[in-house]
Amino acid sequence: MIAFDFCTPTEYVFGPDVENHAGQLIVSRMGARKVLVVSGGSSAERSGLLGRIRQSLTEAGVDFVELTGIQPNPTADEVRRGIALCRAEGVDGLLAVGGGSVIDAAKAMAGGALYDGDFWDFWTGKARMTQALPVGVVLTIAAAGSEGSGNSVITNEVTGQKISLRTNILRPRFSLLNPTLTMTLPPYQTACGITDMMAHIMERYFSNTPDCQVTDSLLEGLLRAIIDVAPKAMLHPDDYQARANLMWAGTMAHNGICGVGRQEEWTCHALEHELSALDPRIAHGAGLAVVFPAWLSYVSAANPGKVEQFARNVFGAADAPAGIAALRAFFTSIGMPQTLGELGLNATDIPRLVANLIALKGTPLGFYHPLTSADLTALYHQML
Amino acid sequence: MIAFDFCTPTEYVFGPDVENHAGQLIVSRMGARKVLVVSGGSSAERSGLLGRIRQSLTEAGVDFVELTGIQPNPTADEVRRGIALCRAEGVDGLLAVGGGSVIDAAKAMAGGALYDGDFWDFWTGKARMTQALPVGVVLTIAAAGSEGSGNSVITNEVTGQKISLRTNILRPRFSLLNPTLTMTLPPYQTACGITDMMAHIMERYFSNTPDCQVTDSLLEGLLRAIIDVAPKAMLHPDDYQARANLMWAGTMAHNGICGVGRQEEWTCHALEHELSALDPRIAHGAGLAVVFPAWLSYVSAANPGKVEQFARNVFGAADAPAGIAALRAFFTSIGMPQTLGELGLNATDIPRLVANLIALKGTPLGFYHPLTSADLTALYHQML
Repeated sequence: MIAFDFCTPTEYVFGPDVENHAGQLIVSRMGARKVLVVSGGSSAERSGLLGRIRQSLTEAGVDFVELTGIQPNPTADEVRRGIALCRAEGVDGLLAVGGGSVIDAAKAMAGGALYDGDFWDFWTGKARMTQALPVGVVLTIAAAGSEGSGNSVITNEVTGQKISLRTNILRPRFSLLNPTLTMTLPPYQTACGITDMMAHIMERYFSNTPDCQVTDSLLEGLLRAIIDVAPKAMLHPDDYQARANLMWAGTMAHNGICGVGRQEEWTCHALEHELSALDPRIAHGAGLAVVFPAWLSYVSAANPGKVEQFARNVFGAADAPAGIAALRAFFTSIGMPQTLGELGLNATDIPRLVANLIALKGTPLGFYHPLTSADLTALYHQML
Repeated sequence: MIAFDFCTPTEYVFGPDVENHAGQLIVSRMGARKVLVVSGGSSAERSGLLGRIRQSLTEAGVDFVELTGIQPNPTADEVRRGIALCRAEGVDGLLAVGGGSVIDAAKAMAGGALYDGDFWDFWTGKARMTQALPVGVVLTIAAAGSEGSGNSVITNEVTGQKISLRTNILRPRFSLLNPTLTMTLPPYQTACGITDMMAHIMERYFSNTPDCQVTDSLLEGLLRAIIDVAPKAMLHPDDYQARANLMWAGTMAHNGICGVGRQEEWTCHALEHELSALDPRIAHGAGLAVVFPAWLSYVSAANPGKVEQFARNVFGAADAPAGIAALRAFFTSIGMPQTLGELGLNATDIPRLVANLIALKGTPLGFYHPLTSADLTALYHQML
């Protein structure tokens, strides 16, 4: 274990109907009087969720304006539109109603609203965020873990960059987790979410930091639990308990408490972000399902230790190849793709993927087994 | 999973020398200018720990007074002495330097200092705590988990009661976790701490709440990790990594994040609290080592399900009796007692133990398998 400084101050309110507490928590946990309610597609409106939230805000005396239509892989332009609205309306907090994209966009608006320059400065490292408007969350997709993290991933359409910022300042003040809200997710999106949360766990798990028995065990346990309940949620979308377990697993996967004290990897996220930066129609989870088993195969030849432990303790497999095969079979069983081809990409895209990745991250990439430019090209080719 | 509302706002700073951040964190996380430094025996003075902390406070411009000598199983009288000191000196925060007893005492002082009546009202349920002075922690014993919890266990010498209060108001603002500080603990105290943290996990694990795959897996993982590293810390007291894993396991065992969404049991703690209330020389962990295997044997006959799962997933044992035997063998291997006799109690004590327990908790006791008065008597007899 290495030294760490960790705090997850988010209040998690979990169970049926918890969205009705939104107004009261905006007052008590955010001290806000007027919020920007940020949401994505039309389903939150059609399902009545936004209506219930409006009622909760009104009953608590919280004024609000709304910004809807945030797209998957939210863009810098959308964030700037939100920041302008925050300033014009003088809001003192934001409520994100949605999944990772909506929450990430709301966080970026919260940080940008209190900054004189362009919010993107924080994402490129040109400036360091020291304050932000408080953010609350009503979660509708179990996947990104943004409801418990200080992360925000934004795509800049102009530069073609997709960058993740992590700062405790952006951790939500509260997150309302109602598993029922996730029951209407299409199977493909449910599967993408399952893959995403597993990837968050594995990015923390594959580390060269020795003597992490406690966090190793916690991360392995999370993976086993997800693998246990995922088929139930896929088969019976309205299985409350399967949805509940997935929702809490997604939060625990990424709020950091199970992964402290160890170097984290995040190479597969970097590899995937280039895919969905190239074609925003590629779902992050689907990209990760292609990337992660290929990366495991590639690095396990050079550094087998942790992959063997993963195979044994997560899948009960005899060796690393068997464990990787089991992971791939699991992803296939929930309808995830195995190849770049299934994502609509081909060999001619690889030079651009590699060039963009190196421009953003440099080489060697990663810690568990650092990858050179040639490695990255070979690895993307193995995904074809 | 059942509905829950959970927040662990404590900032954990973990690693060598972190006690030197005490002063700066008192300012930034507690907003305090003058604190009461609460400690236990003389080892914190002799080792130089208190000296380093004084220097840290001075450098940060934090004024302080000191209260030392808090005993294991802290008493209401000690708490009242601390409350009087807080008021007389006008402190606006407390810093606990020690293990569970010191932290629990400091928390009780923090709650009592802002209350006009007697602090014990909160522990008996006569009053509800709504405010407390902020508390920070420098942890020296990996055991009680009080550094991450809102719990405080106090013994009232007059009434003979030992009662645990749990409220989010008493969660520490920060906890400084330096594994090196635990290296000088005597083996018996290390073993008592290991037993205590395992008991905190098992009290959450043995639940009738169905469909808790995520928290089941996390709790099983914590137990496996502790069982893995504990022999290393017993054999080599200065094994930093073993101490580090135990320290984080102890915090995770009791800050609640791995146990949300399920009914908790806490019968073994109630059974044990009567032992150390009867004879304060009995270490809490040692009492738990006697109580827990006996309770498991007793209840598994009536309700085997979770005990079988525990046996299988924690010890790789074939059935419940084999798992309980493995747990008992583990406790014995680290030097813990197996019987009430080893704790200096005998059959003539049992009527008083049962009477006190029923007076405090009533019957039936527990949820996993509710125990009648006759059950309690039979169960204590099985510990002889």
